[in-house]
Amino acid sequence: MAENLDKPHPTKPIVTPWHVQGNIDYDRLIKEFGTEKIDDKLLQRIKKITGGGELHYMLRRKIFFSHKYLNEALTAYETGEKIYLYTGRAPSGPVHLGHLVPWIFTKWLQDQFKAPLLFQIPDEEKVFFKKGLTFDESKKWAYDNILDIIALGFDPKKTKIFLDTEYAKTMYKTACKVAGKVTFSTAKSVFGFKNSDNLGAIFYTCMQSVPAFLPTEFEGKPTQCIIPHAIDQDPHFRVTRDVAPQLGYPKPCSVHCRFLPGLQGMHAEGKMSASIESTAVYTCDDEKTVKNKINKYAFSGGKATIEEHRRDGGNPDIDVSYQWLVFFEEDDAKLKKIYDDYKSGALLTGELKQILIDKLNTFLVKHREKREKVKDQVEKFMVRD
Amino acid sequence: MAENLDKPHPTKPIVTPWHVQGNIDYDRLIKEFGTEKIDDKLLQRIKKITGGGELHYMLRRKIFFSHKYLNEALTAYETGEKIYLYTGRAPSGPVHLGHLVPWIFTKWLQDQFKAPLLFQIPDEEKVFFKKGLTFDESKKWAYDNILDIIALGFDPKKTKIFLDTEYAKTMYKTACKVAGKVTFSTAKSVFGFKNSDNLGAIFYTCMQSVPAFLPTEFEGKPTQCIIPHAIDQDPHFRVTRDVAPQLGYPKPCSVHCRFLPGLQGMHAEGKMSASIESTAVYTCDDEKTVKNKINKYAFSGGKATIEEHRRDGGNPDIDVSYQWLVFFEEDDAKLKKIYDDYKSGALLTGELKQILIDKLNTFLVKHREKREKVKDQVEKFMVRD
Repeated sequence: MAENLDKPHPTKPIVTPWHVQGNIDYDRLIKEFGTEKIDDKLLQRIKKITGGGELHYMLRRKIFFSHKYLNEALTAYETGEKIYLYTGRAPSGPVHLGHLVPWIFTKWLQDQFKAPLLFQIPDEEKVFFKKGLTFDESKKWAYDNILDIIALGFDPKKTKIFLDTEYAKTMYKTACKVAGKVTFSTAKSVFGFKNSDNLGAIFYTCMQSVPAFLPTEFEGKPTQCIIPHAIDQDPHFRVTRDVAPQLGYPKPCSVHCRFLPGLQGMHAEGKMSASIESTAVYTCDDEKTVKNKINKYAFSGGKATIEEHRRDGGNPDIDVSYQWLVFFEEDDAKLKKIYDDYKSGALLTGELKQILIDKLNTFLVKHREKREKVKDQVEKFMVRD
Repeated sequence: MAENLDKPHPTKPIVTPWHVQGNIDYDRLIKEFGTEKIDDKLLQRIKKITGGGELHYMLRRKIFFSHKYLNEALTAYETGEKIYLYTGRAPSGPVHLGHLVPWIFTKWLQDQFKAPLLFQIPDEEKVFFKKGLTFDESKKWAYDNILDIIALGFDPKKTKIFLDTEYAKTMYKTACKVAGKVTFSTAKSVFGFKNSDNLGAIFYTCMQSVPAFLPTEFEGKPTQCIIPHAIDQDPHFRVTRDVAPQLGYPKPCSVHCRFLPGLQGMHAEGKMSASIESTAVYTCDDEKTVKNKINKYAFSGGKATIEEHRRDGGNPDIDVSYQWLVFFEEDDAKLKKIYDDYKSGALLTGELKQILIDKLNTFLVKHREKREKVKDQVEKFMVRD
């Protein structure tokens, strides 16, 4: 069944591969993007297929909340077909906590499925879309960001990381095959291109499709691909899914995560933004910076005075510190207690913030240690032409 | 001075990089494409710079009739700057005589200027523009066509031949730099793109620009590039010239040749077409085929009867056999005698055709011998990533 590539862009809030703004209604996004909910039935199926152990907390909490063709991918896996994973990172600045979300989940999928992973670093993308970014800067950030990626523990034997410009001999021909199947009309309705957009921006989506069609180059036959990514990237993969059968490939499966809110909350800035420092905690932020940012900026669901808060309780559902713990505190029981205590007023905003600060700093101190340690591991992961 | 990229497409006759049709008015084309005539003053300058010897017959006869920035390129050469040559061939079928015209001239330029030559084989171009052509076919034709190219005698030490898909690691990044500077608006007015055109067709011009910006990769600094090509390709290089200063390069110089008419004459089919066999003589056509094609198809400027022809004379200016001799008979005196004799009626159409048949077969028999001989030379010329 062909997807409707002609879906209108959501007008308010804005969610495109380059811009997320406003208070996101994820149910509405599923409808507008034409994707499907990850429901409890599907979660049970994943649980069974991955050996019956506990599902990843990002599934349990529906941080990964939407998908396309995940049932088909699981069926392929069950019938003994090879599957592989594909995700990516456009390198235009330092890695922040929001970037880590799909990668942490991808690492779990790699462990569960013992699956190869293609990790694309499209170093040309932001050159087209971010005014003033040069290839030199993009490459510098690429190799900086790769340390954050490797530090998450991906299997070096099963993971290939590549920059588009360094892997272009392998990629360009496949990108051309995709390009030949996508009209400007389609690109315009999927991405909202205007006449003033540059040719690189218009062509780029073809390169983002390529890793879904790469394994042929290695293994001689089309293979089922699973792509964990934030939902804003889905328009690219909508194009990929449309082209796949025309190139003789199965449609790749997408699994979509929500956005980690910026420190001011989703209603203010949309998702965490690497270019607005006060919205983001970077992996390189030291302990004091993390503490200061959260104390200063994290939008609070608490009451105006301690007395009021003790009496009426806070609102964890709009509290950014609590929302971040949903993304980073793996222990359900701990998380529930924090929720209940904040709601009842037993936990004050300052105390909640301190829990988050401790959680993040514990994680980030270790992450930076690993980041240092993997500096001599990079070449084990890189593939180039 | 910026070129006007917004020039309207010529409507009738049609001359675009993908389609040439109708009776070409070259003066009008110069005006419409915004190029300049190669006049006698410029010819004298070339003569002086190339040592004062006889100019190539394609210059003397104004087969190369138009240019852009040739004076600037010659000045660069005179002041000791390095120059290099760039031409190409989109491989979608066998090479015909029309393809050889700019290459024969390029070989002369290489000899005169002792200049390096980049010979681009854009094996993706026709996949975007010619319905049904696959990459496999395109690659097959690429390596077939390369034999014709090498057989013309290019210097293996100074000539690099490459397929876009095989050289994409080197080319893609530069193509992206070009792509970032060209809006869809510009591409639309230069090439007349429609919404139904595919993204490959739209991006492709960026790859055709790349060889004008490649030498940096080899020599560390931007170098003056001279591009001999048929005038229909100028829209690509109009884009290249516009982008060049933005990337820190001198504007490349184009020198433009007329089209070798198809056997039926320019008024019928436009330029010789590789895909309409009755318009073209291929380098692989054997002696009998050449003889039959010319006798059967070559449009004649002769009269209806021998008596009439002897009395009133023929019209060499519309006679395709004569026009072809202008492209392939190097000896001015011989050519003039043929012209005069045909015009006076001393030379009959059958005799004129026989002169052309002999000329072409002599050339083609030798060409095919060289083509065989160079089969083991290909790797001396190829560059790949």
